[in-house]
Amino acid sequence: MVFTDIATRTYNHNWRLDPIVRSLLDTDFYKLLMLQMIRQLHPDVRTTFKLINRTRRVRLADIIDEGELRAQLDHARSLRFGKKELIWLAGNSFYGRTQMFSPDFIAWLADFRLPDYELRQVDGQYELRFHGLWIETMMWEIPALAIINELRSRAAMKSRGRFALDVLYARAKAKLWDKVERLSVLPDLVISDFGTRRRHGFLWQRWCVEALKEGLGDRLIGSSNVLLAMDADLEAIGTNAHELPMVQAALAPDDAALARAPYAVLEQWQAHYGGNLRIALPDAFGTAAFLKDAPDWVADWTGFRPDSAPPIEAGEQIIRWWQEKGRDPRSKLLIFSDGMDVDSIEATYRHFHGRVRMSFGWGTNLTNDFRGCAPFETDGLDPISLVCKVVEANGHPAVKLSDNPEKATGDPAEIERYLRVFGGDGRQAVAVQV
Amino acid sequence: MVFTDIATRTYNHNWRLDPIVRSLLDTDFYKLLMLQMIRQLHPDVRTTFKLINRTRRVRLADIIDEGELRAQLDHARSLRFGKKELIWLAGNSFYGRTQMFSPDFIAWLADFRLPDYELRQVDGQYELRFHGLWIETMMWEIPALAIINELRSRAAMKSRGRFALDVLYARAKAKLWDKVERLSVLPDLVISDFGTRRRHGFLWQRWCVEALKEGLGDRLIGSSNVLLAMDADLEAIGTNAHELPMVQAALAPDDAALARAPYAVLEQWQAHYGGNLRIALPDAFGTAAFLKDAPDWVADWTGFRPDSAPPIEAGEQIIRWWQEKGRDPRSKLLIFSDGMDVDSIEATYRHFHGRVRMSFGWGTNLTNDFRGCAPFETDGLDPISLVCKVVEANGHPAVKLSDNPEKATGDPAEIERYLRVFGGDGRQAVAVQV
Repeated sequence: MVFTDIATRTYNHNWRLDPIVRSLLDTDFYKLLMLQMIRQLHPDVRTTFKLINRTRRVRLADIIDEGELRAQLDHARSLRFGKKELIWLAGNSFYGRTQMFSPDFIAWLADFRLPDYELRQVDGQYELRFHGLWIETMMWEIPALAIINELRSRAAMKSRGRFALDVLYARAKAKLWDKVERLSVLPDLVISDFGTRRRHGFLWQRWCVEALKEGLGDRLIGSSNVLLAMDADLEAIGTNAHELPMVQAALAPDDAALARAPYAVLEQWQAHYGGNLRIALPDAFGTAAFLKDAPDWVADWTGFRPDSAPPIEAGEQIIRWWQEKGRDPRSKLLIFSDGMDVDSIEATYRHFHGRVRMSFGWGTNLTNDFRGCAPFETDGLDPISLVCKVVEANGHPAVKLSDNPEKATGDPAEIERYLRVFGGDGRQAVAVQV
Repeated sequence: MVFTDIATRTYNHNWRLDPIVRSLLDTDFYKLLMLQMIRQLHPDVRTTFKLINRTRRVRLADIIDEGELRAQLDHARSLRFGKKELIWLAGNSFYGRTQMFSPDFIAWLADFRLPDYELRQVDGQYELRFHGLWIETMMWEIPALAIINELRSRAAMKSRGRFALDVLYARAKAKLWDKVERLSVLPDLVISDFGTRRRHGFLWQRWCVEALKEGLGDRLIGSSNVLLAMDADLEAIGTNAHELPMVQAALAPDDAALARAPYAVLEQWQAHYGGNLRIALPDAFGTAAFLKDAPDWVADWTGFRPDSAPPIEAGEQIIRWWQEKGRDPRSKLLIFSDGMDVDSIEATYRHFHGRVRMSFGWGTNLTNDFRGCAPFETDGLDPISLVCKVVEANGHPAVKLSDNPEKATGDPAEIERYLRVFGGDGRQAVAVQV
């Protein structure tokens, strides 16, 4: 006998939408760490964050219905941090430290909501902008990306047959598990999920993270997704992002202050966070420039997260720099997180094993690898390179140079100025897949 | 919010067992066709059916708990044909014919139940025998095989992790769909599910059949499983089995009657059934012998189901015979059903395409191909060659020679006698995988 729970079914029929973001904790952990610091240092700075689709050939506005997009964004704006969530943030320890978040910050979060957005269609793309206080707009980055990516996935799967969808997910599971099996033979692997922003969908990310937990055991150290970390009792992983040096640089009154901005940010950070949270992003304005002018104390930080140079080259460059500074790389940590997948994780792991501590942040290719899985014709499930970047701070344009010119963002004239200040040493163009 | 239906959950906790066979229609269609005929011609013949595990290295009694096996067999004995099932049997058309089953037969089925069984353990194997009237014991074949195969699958999956099982089924689904995609490019393919007896499990067979229905459309003509045919609105497929000539031969009073037995059975069959149901199994005592002595009218039958010789050789042999008899093979039908899988289906299809009508009965490799799918060490999901054969009729031993001596069954002295009567021409040993 098939038993249908009529009440549940009737309730489900009443859904206005299937929300993509259902909790403000469904974001990356580094957002909260940065937010706490920004709120102390820059409570009045105003920023604009903007969606940038680097995969121009994918015309998102032709694929995603604007009404559905607005409904999802509006739903995210209706969210508040739940009481249980705030208690967990206050009571849990992060990176071995209790009370990472101050009672004052937690109390402020209780009233937090996402600010308004500005949406229009231009030439088949969505122009999606968030204007307002930095401490509000910065929280849109992850939910905005997750919403657009999942709406695109849903569009590609709309009106497909029940078995076609079943086979799609079966193949994706099989594909991920093959990756897990390859990774499971690397004995000292340290890996975490960094896949929230580019995920195929929330439920799929959750499956991937729980599969990794079963397949890799302790070698999965956690997830950047705070909600999943809470629900699956994993560590919440993350430190800081490019927006810190980008805003600091945008606010710099002159070229000298601009040149100092990357280090000024690190000084601010180390006043707030210690230990394994002292991970520097070297590439905002080029890794070579960053290392050349870095003060000696930067070498006391726990490590680096090279995020736009090829991992082995970037790691070698940083190891040489530590050695020049008289530090032992074996006590240092490199976090690789730029478009990693099993091949590059294996190669990087084998290359550096024993010479430096390593950790991998596995993103798009963990939570959105459906390539070759669909039993129907579609390119709508191939991941695209979508980011949400700060583009303005207090009216000044914000710039990212990156080690890969393909990942640079900002006003062209301002990019020229930054290149004059920082030099363009060591930057090399690599096609951005994800 | 997670909503648990407490009543359903409590009800589920009360299950004594998870029944493998839940309906007497969960059997192969040919059983019902044969049963109707046997009930008219041989209502008093007594037979013994016996389980034979040709894969001796798999010690079933060490793997399957005897208590669980008895509970499943006992549960199958508690089943009766349901009212809806009998109405469907009476009202549905099969092979284009209405009222395939007489009202008298349907009324008799209403009181049918599976007879008792005899079970003991010998040297790590189960000796499972069914003694009694042929019209009762013959109905044990399919449920007995399905029960043992599924109990073995369950044993291999016991205490595996949730994700390990999820990945197992994901891989099996992906594997099957790859097969479906290969078959979907064969434009004139005619295929049906013959996988009940060897299935991994009932739910898995249902998934496979429904996946085939979606992936192959009209080229899936049906299922041998009557319950699935009813539920999925597919044709019920099947004609007759070796037990007919085997019992006819066992009852033969002398060698002359023995030699006539294969054709006597066909005469009985054509008195009951016409059209596409006139499919002869040529290999019970060797195809060469059968064809050599076959009366001319056998060439008027719709076709043959070669079941133990290599498909291309067997097909060529039969086509030659039709041509010798002056029949046009293009109007004839060959049904290939012996251990077929995608490679052999493709090869056979391409070989005979345009020369003869073809249909494929896809069994074990459709409903029980988990080879390479388990993310844990096990050989417990590899299919085995398990059959349930008539071994005695009215006290006389029953024999099957087959075209493949590996598939022969029966008392060795009696096999010798049959070989004298029929000759052993053209028989060749091929390892039996499934």
